[in-house]
Amino acid sequence: MDCINIGLIGYGVIGQGVVKILKNRRKYFKDKYKKDFFIKTIADRSIAKKPSPGLDNTLLTSDIHAVLNDADIHVVVELIGGMQPAKDIMLLAVRSGKHVVTANKELLATCGQELFREANANNRMIHFESAVGAGIPIIRTITEGVAGNKFNGIYGIINGTCNFILTEMARRKLTFQEALKEAQEKGYAESNPTLDISGMDAAHKLVILVFLTQGKFVSVKDFHVEGINHISHEDIEFASALDLEIRLLAIAKKIGNELDVRVHPTLIPKDHGLATVNGIDNAIFLDMDPMGDVFIEGQGAGQMTAASGVVSDLINLGIRKDVQMPTWIYNPTEEQENIVLRKIDKVETRFYIRFMVIDKPGVLSIITGVLGQHNISIASVNQKQENKGSTVPVVMLTHVANERSLREALEQITHLAVVRSRPVAIRMEKL
Amino acid sequence: MDCINIGLIGYGVIGQGVVKILKNRRKYFKDKYKKDFFIKTIADRSIAKKPSPGLDNTLLTSDIHAVLNDADIHVVVELIGGMQPAKDIMLLAVRSGKHVVTANKELLATCGQELFREANANNRMIHFESAVGAGIPIIRTITEGVAGNKFNGIYGIINGTCNFILTEMARRKLTFQEALKEAQEKGYAESNPTLDISGMDAAHKLVILVFLTQGKFVSVKDFHVEGINHISHEDIEFASALDLEIRLLAIAKKIGNELDVRVHPTLIPKDHGLATVNGIDNAIFLDMDPMGDVFIEGQGAGQMTAASGVVSDLINLGIRKDVQMPTWIYNPTEEQENIVLRKIDKVETRFYIRFMVIDKPGVLSIITGVLGQHNISIASVNQKQENKGSTVPVVMLTHVANERSLREALEQITHLAVVRSRPVAIRMEKL
Repeated sequence: MDCINIGLIGYGVIGQGVVKILKNRRKYFKDKYKKDFFIKTIADRSIAKKPSPGLDNTLLTSDIHAVLNDADIHVVVELIGGMQPAKDIMLLAVRSGKHVVTANKELLATCGQELFREANANNRMIHFESAVGAGIPIIRTITEGVAGNKFNGIYGIINGTCNFILTEMARRKLTFQEALKEAQEKGYAESNPTLDISGMDAAHKLVILVFLTQGKFVSVKDFHVEGINHISHEDIEFASALDLEIRLLAIAKKIGNELDVRVHPTLIPKDHGLATVNGIDNAIFLDMDPMGDVFIEGQGAGQMTAASGVVSDLINLGIRKDVQMPTWIYNPTEEQENIVLRKIDKVETRFYIRFMVIDKPGVLSIITGVLGQHNISIASVNQKQENKGSTVPVVMLTHVANERSLREALEQITHLAVVRSRPVAIRMEKL
Repeated sequence: MDCINIGLIGYGVIGQGVVKILKNRRKYFKDKYKKDFFIKTIADRSIAKKPSPGLDNTLLTSDIHAVLNDADIHVVVELIGGMQPAKDIMLLAVRSGKHVVTANKELLATCGQELFREANANNRMIHFESAVGAGIPIIRTITEGVAGNKFNGIYGIINGTCNFILTEMARRKLTFQEALKEAQEKGYAESNPTLDISGMDAAHKLVILVFLTQGKFVSVKDFHVEGINHISHEDIEFASALDLEIRLLAIAKKIGNELDVRVHPTLIPKDHGLATVNGIDNAIFLDMDPMGDVFIEGQGAGQMTAASGVVSDLINLGIRKDVQMPTWIYNPTEEQENIVLRKIDKVETRFYIRFMVIDKPGVLSIITGVLGQHNISIASVNQKQENKGSTVPVVMLTHVANERSLREALEQITHLAVVRSRPVAIRMEKL
């Protein structure tokens, strides 16, 4: 029986899940794939404190070089996350003839091009199903399942923490802070939740998806990334009355030679599949040519779903470990070379805008006047209550408007005497 | 540049779509995959009548042996459908060292085991993404995307014709016959629609899914297959009032060592993803361990979506054409050997039942009395109108009931004097 020797670096929550699956399913995998997936070595800084039942034949060590220098190890599973030493581990692994499985979106989004090139040069593969949407097979769907299609647009809910917060705010009328606290208590958010709620984690994942669908490496610094901490449950309720849901959406649309790439809270029609994605679920909506639309949803966070993605990578790698595999996902194409990023200033979407204004006659006329000067036309207006002289919310939906014009108009409106606070603007996406 | 020589047998609607994609994207595929996907020969009975623009370097013939006897052809794309000569074409192809791509669900569901064995023995592969859900990557998701998972249950809307009919009946209050006629006019149903509306097409696809998820080949003769022609739009409306939608569902659940496999119209809670699948869309819901649930939806019928699945197969085959690929999907496993099919008599589900009864006091008591004798307990009862002495519908939802007991009870109830026609029973699935 052909043996796949695995070296696991990083024995945290996901790593322990991977070990659990590989142990429980070892016999099944032998029958099915005619391969013995064997965990030869586990390296972890705090290995002494970690549980290790039934790992008698596995070397447990705190030294990553026990994995990297072992010529018998075929695949390195990198699960320590972050930039370093993860990057060096991956480079050393492929240089020493090992395949790599990782769930490290930050590293792939930042150094993916370099890492993929190095893997390619060494004829090794890097698999990373769990880097986006945990075990939901988004990566493999894009790279293999719908191979041959052009991607007109991808729209993803790819951060479980933000989706949990937004949907709990809506379902139970919580404030952002209350929902965040609950996410932390349930283990869905880190004690420092910045990477998630700032939209940056989704942005890292979007970089990977853009690379896979458009063949172009972009940087999170080069596109608009906006988090969810300014979303109030009032806005969620007002949007709901307009049959809209708010989700943190990662968007990449191809418009001619331009790529419109963004991460921000987005209004979605309630009858669209993405609007029904609740809790920590992740989902992705692919608009393709000639296939049309495909929608995939599943659990996007959690130990076993992330571990499931890692194991699927191991199997797909393992059954092909000895074959000279084409590392085609790294190949540039002519039509991809000319792609440029569309600046956010040029982006055009519809907008939801909430103004807090003094409730007196003529206010609407002043505001819509300023919007009109900036070529922004209004699709609907709702003043939420009447209370002469006090502050009331006015909610507008615009027709398609230019981002820059809208920003300039809002800047001007913010300084009007009748306007009591900075307007809240949320983009709406036609799907 | 490595060339993938393709021999296409069957140049109908899908075949023409495949040719269109391969021609339009040839340069892109060369860049991306470093392979030249070349249509060397097209064989079709009526080749003289078919369009062939831009195929100057392709041999057009009515002789399938011009494909099968050509040692330079690497992949045979079989798109004639049906049992013969498709079966012989596939056997001859793998025996002469060619890989096969097919969308032929009927043949795979009937002779798949023999065909896969023959492919395995000849170290060739049969790819068949478009056999289920057209280009929606259901096959590749199951075989690769979530590799390593156990499948507790699969629930599929995998016949676009039936789904179009059911959703149009609901949306526009059409009768079954009206909706069927419209499906035929739009090209979504054959002039002889039996295979679709009888549930048999979905059953063929389910056989393939059961094989892929449970490693067991079952026959459509061995499980319950029920079509949609007895569904009335009254039942759709009554169900809707109970927050339920009716869909033709293909179901395969693992319960211990038993497999509960069925195709029938099924009531689904409106807030479940499957209940939102409309028109010719197909979708599949996978309940897995340890991954949890994954849901995939997309266009399940149409020239270009089916062609997209064939092209994705060609690419996945093409980039691995020279490698000794593990044909692992055909390997039996120990845990799969003991699986037996659960007889429909033993199946337990909730039921929607509509009785047409004479509107007079005591009728409900008689009916519920018979149901009670058969151990069937009622969750809710609605008499839809009051019209003393005439015939009125009574709609019941049962708690979980045994299929055989229910059938016996309904048989008894049908013969009651107060009951005017055979009751309609529709199974409800907890998802």
